Amino acid sequence: MASAETAIRPTRAENFSEWYLEVIKAADLAESSTVRGCMVIKPWGYALWEHVQRVLDGMFKATGHVNAYFPLFIPLSLLEKEAAHVEGFAKECAVVTHHRLEARDGKLVPVGELEEPLVVRPTSETIIGESFARWVQSYRDLPLLINQWANVVRWEMRTRMFLRTAEFLWQEGHTAHATEQEAIDETMQMLGIYARFAEEWMALPVVQGEKTASERFPGAVRTYCIEAMMQDRKALQAGTSHFLGQNFARASGIQFQDEKGALTHAWTTSWGLSTRMIGAMIMTHGDDDGMVCPPRLAPQQVVIIPVIQKPEVREQVLAWCAELKRELEAQSYAGAPVRVHLDARDVQGAKKSWEWIKKGAPIRLEVGPKDIEKGAVFMGRRDRKPREKQSVPRGELVAGVGALLQEIQDALLRRARAVRAEHTRPIDTKDEFYAYFTPPATVRPNDPTPIHGGFALAHFSGDPAVEARIKEDLGVTVRCIPLEPGEPGTCPFTGQPSPKRVVWAKSY
Amino acid sequence: MASAETAIRPTRAENFSEWYLEVIKAADLAESSTVRGCMVIKPWGYALWEHVQRVLDGMFKATGHVNAYFPLFIPLSLLEKEAAHVEGFAKECAVVTHHRLEARDGKLVPVGELEEPLVVRPTSETIIGESFARWVQSYRDLPLLINQWANVVRWEMRTRMFLRTAEFLWQEGHTAHATEQEAIDETMQMLGIYARFAEEWMALPVVQGEKTASERFPGAVRTYCIEAMMQDRKALQAGTSHFLGQNFARASGIQFQDEKGALTHAWTTSWGLSTRMIGAMIMTHGDDDGMVCPPRLAPQQVVIIPVIQKPEVREQVLAWCAELKRELEAQSYAGAPVRVHLDARDVQGAKKSWEWIKKGAPIRLEVGPKDIEKGAVFMGRRDRKPREKQSVPRGELVAGVGALLQEIQDALLRRARAVRAEHTRPIDTKDEFYAYFTPPATVRPNDPTPIHGGFALAHFSGDPAVEARIKEDLGVTVRCIPLEPGEPGTCPFTGQPSPKRVVWAKSY
Ligand SMILES: [Zn+2]
Ligand SMILES: [Zn+2]
Repeated sequence: MASAETAIRPTRAENFSEWYLEVIKAADLAESSTVRGCMVIKPWGYALWEHVQRVLDGMFKATGHVNAYFPLFIPLSLLEKEAAHVEGFAKECAVVTHHRLEARDGKLVPVGELEEPLVVRPTSETIIGESFARWVQSYRDLPLLINQWANVVRWEMRTRMFLRTAEFLWQEGHTAHATEQEAIDETMQMLGIYARFAEEWMALPVVQGEKTASERFPGAVRTYCIEAMMQDRKALQAGTSHFLGQNFARASGIQFQDEKGALTHAWTTSWGLSTRMIGAMIMTHGDDDGMVCPPRLAPQQVVIIPVIQKPEVREQVLAWCAELKRELEAQSYAGAPVRVHLDARDVQGAKKSWEWIKKGAPIRLEVGPKDIEKGAVFMGRRDRKPREKQSVPRGELVAGVGALLQEIQDALLRRARAVRAEHTRPIDTKDEFYAYFTPPATVRPNDPTPIHGGFALAHFSGDPAVEARIKEDLGVTVRCIPLEPGEPGTCPFTGQPSPKRVVWAKSY
Repeated sequence: MASAETAIRPTRAENFSEWYLEVIKAADLAESSTVRGCMVIKPWGYALWEHVQRVLDGMFKATGHVNAYFPLFIPLSLLEKEAAHVEGFAKECAVVTHHRLEARDGKLVPVGELEEPLVVRPTSETIIGESFARWVQSYRDLPLLINQWANVVRWEMRTRMFLRTAEFLWQEGHTAHATEQEAIDETMQMLGIYARFAEEWMALPVVQGEKTASERFPGAVRTYCIEAMMQDRKALQAGTSHFLGQNFARASGIQFQDEKGALTHAWTTSWGLSTRMIGAMIMTHGDDDGMVCPPRLAPQQVVIIPVIQKPEVREQVLAWCAELKRELEAQSYAGAPVRVHLDARDVQGAKKSWEWIKKGAPIRLEVGPKDIEKGAVFMGRRDRKPREKQSVPRGELVAGVGALLQEIQDALLRRARAVRAEHTRPIDTKDEFYAYFTPPATVRPNDPTPIHGGFALAHFSGDPAVEARIKEDLGVTVRCIPLEPGEPGTCPFTGQPSPKRVVWAKSY
């Protein structure tokens, strides 16, 4: 590979959405399947998800939640119970109608029609509500703090790997409380956990905020989210937390006797985070050489690449590397032993090195006979240029590996924050707003839309018609009303008073 | 509760299958849902599964396997590819035929018919084979060692919680190899891992063996399994490992260039273990007072129960218990910190104690002001009678908790082995065989069938017609042909020579 070239073509600037698919391919994260809209999550991509699961699961348990598992199928009659909810999901439901296959004229056909069709869960409020109604009798049974790790299906027409697929993996928390305040506190607590996870573990700076009515979860009273900026300056919703009021409790009959003996409906919440997060990591940290894994979630944090030119040194080099691996694994980082991979395949060193760059391993260590003589390794960091490598004494490397991984983690977060800061702009007039989000002209008519815009912090009086108009004109929506305090002002679209600036952006 | 009574009614002897359901209820492990044949796995049951997952996943990774995730849906055309396979599963497939719901006359109806119906995966050989065909090109790509944690659906007509449900959770391993021998070695390695997991972690003694043709996995060349004896003397298949030969590789087109450049089909395996294991734990270790969790997989290994008669001592007792909890958690057992729960609910001590007996917590510690004065706790072990409790000095308990948990684990395995030994019998004549499996008369005509039979070790010449006849007459089948070496002999049913004794039993 010539030094001016990058490993991924097109580059981000050339065609961001093509670049995204090429990174997924080059890093071996996932692939499309023959099943319309469904993806196969390959081992390197799934391992990222396993670390997301491990860390989040720990955070949920530390705040008193327990896991359970509810049916994949939801009878139509259950789904129908909450009107806004069913309306929100009806258009994208996979429906099971038969329970048997029979060969007819050499072809399999569905037979055994079900009396009541079953929907493959798009989310589980209704099916879980049905259990909660049985589990909750008295105030003593509350709060009920449940989480589920599961697959869900939403029949999207336009799909995109990790970001929008017919089936995806996620966790969905569902809780019931005796008072409105407790349910609101839970909603905000979980939003805070998502924000902390995003920043501390994914190196993903996020804005915490509330959705406007038009972007609210179907059936919720209030929807909160964390929003992140991708490198193409679009927003990505990275986790949502819903205060459901008593809507679902009424629909499902979740009632309890309070301390005075009166029967009242519980207050519920739900909150979810999905495999979409892997898409967020790619589009936040990835560069023109491929994936960049945040060290805390990287499936392998250190990869040792033996560089063996002559077969006679092979054994000695491999033995030295194996010992180095053991020493590094004895170190710990972010509460777990350092994850080290020794790539002993009989493949050229430079080729292996590029593979690990594309996969985004945080630290690469090249080890040849000369390095061994010096008692050193040749180290490359994924947050720096591929050729920016340095010799590091073995002992220094081993002792400092945890600190080094955190240094890379910090660098990724700093970089992502800088990108976001650079492309976040307070805007006070409608003209400026429209100009900000209008794509610059392309050189050739078939070129992809150049990267433009970002987060506009503009006042908004809250009129849904204005939102709808801007969405139609520019494809821009209110991503959230930030939780952070802000100053009141004037809405540039209506001239009406606005309590604070909101975040406007194009989004995934 | 009077001392002669037990917590679960009916008892095992009175009605084993009713007892089973009552234990699930009393231990709060699971419940039926309104979705036909589907269950809700409640937190205590799901936590057992989480520990099964954690330990097995570690064993899989230690043998070089990685996790991935494949689509929930299988297009009919893919499922059809392996003839025996589709025939085996066609009768129990949930089929998705529509992708939208529409309100008509105030009722939701499925619309948007799919061009090709999709089957909800009953197992994933065909959908994974489709990916493997892309991933495998050269002998260098082999072996491919993949595992998936997933839900699967088999539309069973008669369901039973944990043992046979329309949807269940499992892991399914799928591997591809360059040679027949490597694939066979993998098949046997995974069978061995299941056997080791069952014995060391679940305290479940198992027979490893091969299935006869009639019980083989649809499409497999050979199916191996581990079989355990439940307390009603029926067999339960607790994990299967299949050598698939080149059948699925041919069906899916998994081909590779070998070292000489010739194109050949890979050899594949698959192996699975499911939430059925929780049913096995209940029926192996449970007693007339409820669930008995094997300590290594118990969600909580030690439960501290403050016994507070007077409110004024509450704070002091709780503080002492909290400190005890911290000390116990600093101990480790089976490679992890001891899992300790402090049950601080404002509920009578005896009531709490019975709840934890029914849930099967291995060690209960009752702590009142007098125990604190003595610097001791009042300890109950779940492998002993509920009232067989003893005072143990605090320091001794803390230092010895790991050893004590292993003592209980060993006791459970020993007990299960003794039950199996007592009800395993070599049988050499057809009459004795029929007598062994014929239910004794019931006292009243409506009484449940008394527990009888067990494992019959009888010779078998291998004639499928004999198997079919015995299944029809007695509901007894060959559970497996044990791997352990045996002596040749004569089949009592045909008079033909038999290579070795096989295990016959009624089964779940
Ligand atoms: Zn948002
Ligand atoms: Zn078996």
